Amino acid sequence: MAGLPDIQLILRPGIVEMGWGHPDPALLPVDDMARAADFALRRDGPAALAYGAEQGPGRLIEPLAAWLARREGSELPPEQLFITGGVSQGLDLLCTLLTRPSDAVLVEAPSYHLAQRIFHDHGLCQIPVHADEGGLRPDALAAALAELRREGRAARFLYTVPTFGNPTGATLSLERRQVILSLANEAGLTIVEDDVYRHLWYDAPPPPSLFSLAPAGRVIRLGSFSKLLAPGLRLGWLTAAPELVRRCAGSGLLDSGGGVSHFAAHVVAAYLELGLLDDHVERLQAAYRRRRAALLAALARHLPPGCRWIAPGGGFFLWLQLPAGCDSAALLSAAERAGVSYVPGGRFFPGGGGERYLRLAFSLLSAEELAEGARRFGDVLR
Amino acid sequence: MAGLPDIQLILRPGIVEMGWGHPDPALLPVDDMARAADFALRRDGPAALAYGAEQGPGRLIEPLAAWLARREGSELPPEQLFITGGVSQGLDLLCTLLTRPSDAVLVEAPSYHLAQRIFHDHGLCQIPVHADEGGLRPDALAAALAELRREGRAARFLYTVPTFGNPTGATLSLERRQVILSLANEAGLTIVEDDVYRHLWYDAPPPPSLFSLAPAGRVIRLGSFSKLLAPGLRLGWLTAAPELVRRCAGSGLLDSGGGVSHFAAHVVAAYLELGLLDDHVERLQAAYRRRRAALLAALARHLPPGCRWIAPGGGFFLWLQLPAGCDSAALLSAAERAGVSYVPGGRFFPGGGGERYLRLAFSLLSAEELAEGARRFGDVLR
Repeated sequence: MAGLPDIQLILRPGIVEMGWGHPDPALLPVDDMARAADFALRRDGPAALAYGAEQGPGRLIEPLAAWLARREGSELPPEQLFITGGVSQGLDLLCTLLTRPSDAVLVEAPSYHLAQRIFHDHGLCQIPVHADEGGLRPDALAAALAELRREGRAARFLYTVPTFGNPTGATLSLERRQVILSLANEAGLTIVEDDVYRHLWYDAPPPPSLFSLAPAGRVIRLGSFSKLLAPGLRLGWLTAAPELVRRCAGSGLLDSGGGVSHFAAHVVAAYLELGLLDDHVERLQAAYRRRRAALLAALARHLPPGCRWIAPGGGFFLWLQLPAGCDSAALLSAAERAGVSYVPGGRFFPGGGGERYLRLAFSLLSAEELAEGARRFGDVLR
Repeated sequence: MAGLPDIQLILRPGIVEMGWGHPDPALLPVDDMARAADFALRRDGPAALAYGAEQGPGRLIEPLAAWLARREGSELPPEQLFITGGVSQGLDLLCTLLTRPSDAVLVEAPSYHLAQRIFHDHGLCQIPVHADEGGLRPDALAAALAELRREGRAARFLYTVPTFGNPTGATLSLERRQVILSLANEAGLTIVEDDVYRHLWYDAPPPPSLFSLAPAGRVIRLGSFSKLLAPGLRLGWLTAAPELVRRCAGSGLLDSGGGVSHFAAHVVAAYLELGLLDDHVERLQAAYRRRRAALLAALARHLPPGCRWIAPGGGFFLWLQLPAGCDSAALLSAAERAGVSYVPGGRFFPGGGGERYLRLAFSLLSAEELAEGARRFGDVLR
């Protein structure tokens, strides 16, 4: 038997892999994490290895709440913060606690395809709500809510990535945020805000989160250290009304196992206490800003007329529209033969559509590789 | 606001806490874990921090499969091993993938109360199957299966802790294992075997697991580093047919987040590679053996006639039957006033019952504390 893979990423020789929304391994803070692990175990001793407090360890919650409040410019009482095993685990837990199979959920279309796989595993009925270059469309949300009302149904929640979205890179304006929140308030709709890219802005900080703009209880926001530090930690957080935080912490999963990712949480608490996070985020911003610039320049140079894209203000992704008549899924094998890969747009639409689009990630590859990938893709399109 | 708790364990001054099935903090291998974390990050670099392979990192799967095969004396091909975030996370994932709300599951009664909370969160209908001093009763299983057949229903699985069980400490004999497997084979019933105490035996190794005795696909077995190393790692494993391993690895949760507890898995892979696990397990066996002896001696000395118990051959727990007419839940507040605590037996029965029983844990406390707890409880009973 060949050796089993150690990590999720599979790089194929000769292919510029623009499909993976993974951080560049060279940007993972290996040495500082070793320092933080050592610090955590020496300082906290057995507390770093015992069953953790269900809400997450106080060691992490308190400094993380302070860090988020400072970076986001809005207060965050620790009782609104719950430590997760990353966005995926947080979504999975929310599905278990808030939904039952065949329940309806509204899903931004396009949005993160693997969140949709989690909803699928929970048997949920996913209703697409369309987005455009400005993010989720309020008129589409209003129409979806009206349709549900006519049918006498309610959606358990709306899932959206409103800031440097996956896959589009789009960000909701403050005005749209307010309209969407009014619609949600009227309809009694819970919003699940996937906010993992907020701190990776490259031009200017984004508008406030839906969570921070909304009345208590309306929005559950998911954040993560996967993009900010290291995905292998399986560590993230959720901000929500204290009642929802208590419900998560009081679930069977947490009662039985204690806090998720407790050891990793202690290591990151030490990383925060050593004052390493701000510098690291700045380093990431600088690196990804350069890569974005390289990708944008190469697309402008190499793609044929009829292709359209908008510079993303942050995050990992650029959303590319192909000329009329092109199908990104059908093109993929030709692109891979030419040495470049991406994720076809159709994967991000729960209800179908998106054939003319594709997602390019600029997080994993160097500026040179991105430029070469764009050049190869331009050749394929011609 | 007072500081938030860091760990799950809450010790109340003046009370001998025999309720918690937690390891003694003094037995957590803090220094060796620091050494392993350092080794893992220096040796594996970014691979320890990236999105992990969905089945678990090859770095851990291969040495863990070899360790389990050696300690258990039966082959374990790596394709039958899946890395979990502990038994709780494994159970939660199995519920998501294999069940839908209102599905029936058979649950050993008594068995681990917090597993039952996870089943409850998934909306499952829990049907108790009674156990006695020899573990799950084959006649009770046959009767439950016959009843389901009459109703035209099927159970999604049977949940059991057949080896040094929680809460009873009982272990199924080889003969009962074989009868139970025949019944399961006939009925097409999947068994979920919670096998977390197997390696903590104090007199002689237990009979082989149901998993290793069964034909492929009949048993899904859950193991964990929570009892063997440190619960805060949130790291465990599942052994099952390769098809089920692939189904877990291919779920939305794993596709989205990569392998669970990937960083902790790398740290434990290093711990294994440094050759530290065998010695640590022996240290635990010696410590818990001493505590068990202290508890048994103190119970024999201090409890009034009419109390019954059997020396557990391994694990964390002793199951105590009170004299006729006693109710362990009703007694608890008097016991706590007298400075000793436990978990009332009723908590472990999904369908009610168990009032005359209670669970004592001998994992957390020193021999002296256990003896003092038994003395205090004897006073309460008199």
